[in-house]
Amino acid sequence: MEKSDVLIIGGSAAGPVAGITARRHYKDAKVTVIRKEKEGQVLVPCGLPYIFGTVGAPEKNIIPDALLSGNNIDFIVDEATSIDRQAKTVTTASGKSIGYEKLVLATGSAPIIIPIPGKDLENVFSAQKDVDYLNGLLKVLEGVKDVVVIGGGFIGLEFGDELKKRGLNVTIVEMLPHCLQLVFDEDFCNLAESKLKERGVNIRTNAQVEAILGEKKVTGVKLTTGEELEADLAFMCIGVRPNTELAQKAELQIGETRAIWVDEYGRTSDKDIFAVGDCAEKRSFFTKRPSALRLASIACTEGRIVGANLFELRRRNEGVIGSFATIIGDSGVGMAGLTETAAKAAGFDTVTSEVKTPDKHPGSMPGAREFTVKLVFERATQEIMGGQVCGGVTVGEVVNVLAALIQNRMTANQVATFQYGTHPFFTPSPIPYPIVNAAEAALLKL
Amino acid sequence: MEKSDVLIIGGSAAGPVAGITARRHYKDAKVTVIRKEKEGQVLVPCGLPYIFGTVGAPEKNIIPDALLSGNNIDFIVDEATSIDRQAKTVTTASGKSIGYEKLVLATGSAPIIIPIPGKDLENVFSAQKDVDYLNGLLKVLEGVKDVVVIGGGFIGLEFGDELKKRGLNVTIVEMLPHCLQLVFDEDFCNLAESKLKERGVNIRTNAQVEAILGEKKVTGVKLTTGEELEADLAFMCIGVRPNTELAQKAELQIGETRAIWVDEYGRTSDKDIFAVGDCAEKRSFFTKRPSALRLASIACTEGRIVGANLFELRRRNEGVIGSFATIIGDSGVGMAGLTETAAKAAGFDTVTSEVKTPDKHPGSMPGAREFTVKLVFERATQEIMGGQVCGGVTVGEVVNVLAALIQNRMTANQVATFQYGTHPFFTPSPIPYPIVNAAEAALLKL
Repeated sequence: MEKSDVLIIGGSAAGPVAGITARRHYKDAKVTVIRKEKEGQVLVPCGLPYIFGTVGAPEKNIIPDALLSGNNIDFIVDEATSIDRQAKTVTTASGKSIGYEKLVLATGSAPIIIPIPGKDLENVFSAQKDVDYLNGLLKVLEGVKDVVVIGGGFIGLEFGDELKKRGLNVTIVEMLPHCLQLVFDEDFCNLAESKLKERGVNIRTNAQVEAILGEKKVTGVKLTTGEELEADLAFMCIGVRPNTELAQKAELQIGETRAIWVDEYGRTSDKDIFAVGDCAEKRSFFTKRPSALRLASIACTEGRIVGANLFELRRRNEGVIGSFATIIGDSGVGMAGLTETAAKAAGFDTVTSEVKTPDKHPGSMPGAREFTVKLVFERATQEIMGGQVCGGVTVGEVVNVLAALIQNRMTANQVATFQYGTHPFFTPSPIPYPIVNAAEAALLKL
Repeated sequence: MEKSDVLIIGGSAAGPVAGITARRHYKDAKVTVIRKEKEGQVLVPCGLPYIFGTVGAPEKNIIPDALLSGNNIDFIVDEATSIDRQAKTVTTASGKSIGYEKLVLATGSAPIIIPIPGKDLENVFSAQKDVDYLNGLLKVLEGVKDVVVIGGGFIGLEFGDELKKRGLNVTIVEMLPHCLQLVFDEDFCNLAESKLKERGVNIRTNAQVEAILGEKKVTGVKLTTGEELEADLAFMCIGVRPNTELAQKAELQIGETRAIWVDEYGRTSDKDIFAVGDCAEKRSFFTKRPSALRLASIACTEGRIVGANLFELRRRNEGVIGSFATIIGDSGVGMAGLTETAAKAAGFDTVTSEVKTPDKHPGSMPGAREFTVKLVFERATQEIMGGQVCGGVTVGEVVNVLAALIQNRMTANQVATFQYGTHPFFTPSPIPYPIVNAAEAALLKL
């Protein structure tokens, strides 16, 4: 029987990172990844929406297999079908049985398909991480004019914005009062929505889909109000559900968010089995309660934690902060930590502040645009809990500055004297540098 | 006699920020700035080189006076000529005497002029923060073909790169073996130099200027080797010296770096007189020894510390980290903290690591370019001491991520599990995210 010291099920972000980290920390261990995707067919998860207007083909959005081979990690293209925890073996669809010392579940998540009439019609798509499926979608897009995107979260907005680049008529339908409402406060949702509208994307908020219409192919989308939107393609992106079938069959504990329960070290209820990425339950950095956040960056961080913990516990997971950004046209919006709304809902008393300044300096620099920062502090400890930003291409790293401040639980006073650097082409002016200035503004209210 | 609770001498970056911070922390205090620059004539210090190829005129590179008036800060256009510490008054060139409760010296710095033959010729310029002077330089540039920049630090490179945009023949002369040698390790100096050369800028390193040649106007620059470079303009930027005349006349203590000595709270040897910005001595965050770092961002941070400390000590200066970036063509290079060379020179045993990855993901994203990160850790504590980066327009905020990690004295293990966010357009991939990956690489050597 084949046997591996470390056996990892899943070949997307978290699995390989756990493998590489295991290779680094336990250099003599045999590390094997089992995955469903054939050679050269693992998609970069966050790049998925960008296949359709920017990158052009799923084949250009691939995580190279050299990531594994270059780190001396074996990989098997196969599907794990069951785990025998007693015998410490995994059985695969092709009938193999592979032994393990330590097992890592990185089985990911799958798009939620709403069980509405018409969900199985031709031209109903979702964000499936599969090269053939996405090539099918690309081909269909060639003959399409009207697209309805069901779900106004990040993926929905990115997909909608990309399809706009193809000249399609795009309508985003969102159940909540605002797009991105789960990740931004209302003012930032408004900012993002206004940028989408400028780009010509139609937005229908407070709107719920009752059915997808059509005989064989999609012809429209019907809302619960009775209104019908024309559509020859519907893209469903209301969220994902963790892939836990394998874990459930093996009777591993499932958590409150229906993901695989793990402890602070990434161990499941079986101490020789770990779980990482979208299939694993997360806890909030702030409350330590289960969190529904799922991001490729979080998956990779968990891979780095678990990879180091396999044979000795070396790294503790302090809980997810959440740091992300997206692009709408050429505008960037992003956030780290808790929004004001989320912080209040979690039970914190907050103080917030918002500042605006040009993102280059002087403001007369070519290409300078408005940069907005909103910070959220907890009143009693004065610790920074979150930040939201809107600007240009630098927002992706600005949210990482915020993530670093949050992760270190810096107080408003410490943030106000944070030693940043500036440059005319790259950042706002040192005088009104927005993160520190927002902290000063918050201090006045604390 | 006029009297102000807070009197600030100097109207550039540090002075106004100290004033605004004083206004926030002591809201009833009368705050007054005395400055030499007339209405609407205070230049954005870091924007100075960009007047010549990008922004077009000194008048477009101005700190608005509304910064003062909008914060209820008075300003007087005049020159402070002496301080009477006993009487707590400042005398000005126009003969005024102004009383103070707390005095803040923000007298800045002036370019060092090397005392070589020809230094007073027409068409010898330096980075004077003066609108009329810079307009004079702009006018002269219209008739110029060959420029020699004396000094290969940040200002020299920025000025050289900007003049290249005007189509001029630019040669940078640097005494040390490399440009930027005081702020980068050799490998990053090489990166920066190769980008400058690609832009067509000539670089002469290990080269010292003996004289500026010409009868009335500059005709050339003579090196100590005897070689003569053709030039019809010479720009001297070998560094700055703090403006301490006023402080010296008032018998305030001067520090080892010839700047005004201050304690951790920004107080000079007179407890009612503070000093901030380029005129004030700095201490290293790492060694607490005097540091020669001078940056507008540091000046502003000092302004925020001192402004809060004027009537009660509320903020301690932990010492300068140094975080900065610059642009060469469309490449960004930057750093935060100590280089390997500087850390070793300061007495630390270091471990370094360097990683490269595309700055967008997948690497096939349009406009993706190589992103290089080098990190420096102290071996015993495993704390991050510095980072150098080379990439595109995001380096300015990436150095701020590094600054936040350094300021919080995070260990290699903490940096390796730092919770960053990523996005295809804005950042490297979450899998090889370079800051955490470099920390992992360093851990293998610790």
